Amino acid sequence: MFVLGIDPGLSRCGYGCVRSESGRTVAIAAGVITTPITETVPSRLASLREELHSLVSELHPDVVVVERVFFQTNARTAMSVGQASGVAMLTAVELGCEVVEYTSNEVKLAVTGFGAASKDQVQRMVARLLNLDAVPEPPDAADALALALCHLSTAPWARLARPAAPGPTAELASP
Amino acid sequence: MFVLGIDPGLSRCGYGCVRSESGRTVAIAAGVITTPITETVPSRLASLREELHSLVSELHPDVVVVERVFFQTNARTAMSVGQASGVAMLTAVELGCEVVEYTSNEVKLAVTGFGAASKDQVQRMVARLLNLDAVPEPPDAADALALALCHLSTAPWARLARPAAPGPTAELASP
Repeated sequence: MFVLGIDPGLSRCGYGCVRSESGRTVAIAAGVITTPITETVPSRLASLREELHSLVSELHPDVVVVERVFFQTNARTAMSVGQASGVAMLTAVELGCEVVEYTSNEVKLAVTGFGAASKDQVQRMVARLLNLDAVPEPPDAADALALALCHLSTAPWARLARPAAPGPTAELASP
Repeated sequence: MFVLGIDPGLSRCGYGCVRSESGRTVAIAAGVITTPITETVPSRLASLREELHSLVSELHPDVVVVERVFFQTNARTAMSVGQASGVAMLTAVELGCEVVEYTSNEVKLAVTGFGAASKDQVQRMVARLLNLDAVPEPPDAADALALALCHLSTAPWARLARPAAPGPTAELASP
């Protein structure tokens, strides 16, 4: 199973792809897509779309996991995170991928066993779970890998817990 | 000049297209795109994209005006408004339209002369400016027409105020 995690953002959009086969989990690709702050929002969204389209077409993930973001802090960043999240989800679903969302706390809980873990703790657990020598850089890439790992550890339980649903992932995706 | 206003939203996305020719301003189309709350966010974004793509392809607006939203209130709605706004901007720019954003207060000021006007006052002014017998329904469509009217009244002044800029609309679009 191929899972692509996306940590949405307009200035920096992290991605991390993980393959799970016969109980082994391996990082396939990780990085960050950036768009220049000097350009207009619409053209930055178009660049992001193009990069994500290439990435998803190349990696062919079964599932794309997007961080579900809540807006309590910076209103200006929140708007662009929402816009980037919309473009990421649209691209994934148009390319035939299943799309699932998790909150930051769900990711922390799944990866470290502690829902209030620090960013640093999550990133170190990502390196350990993927058998990497160092924490993946930049941090956006590590965060995206954590999203993918969260799905791999959560999805089987969700499937068991909801046998009557038409599909466990349809349940996980927000209404 | 054809201007298409879009009041972004995932449950209800208002649109209103206005043509301005020889000092006459006429409403060409107005309505609302809805997506069912029972479907997943990714598939609702894909439906919205499809509808907006058809609309922009059919109307061929010169400019698409999207409301610039700030997130102070409901966190759940804010996320989906941001996602819908991202999809609307992406669609417009990919179809070769110039994209401009205005805040709700800028629209109120341009249409009624009063930045703190009520929704009802704005909608009645939309009907008067477009020489319509009644306020356009549903309210999302009237709000979208107000966005288009805001651009028509603001753009010439922005052009005069910024003669050295590469394009007045590039200045108006957010950085």
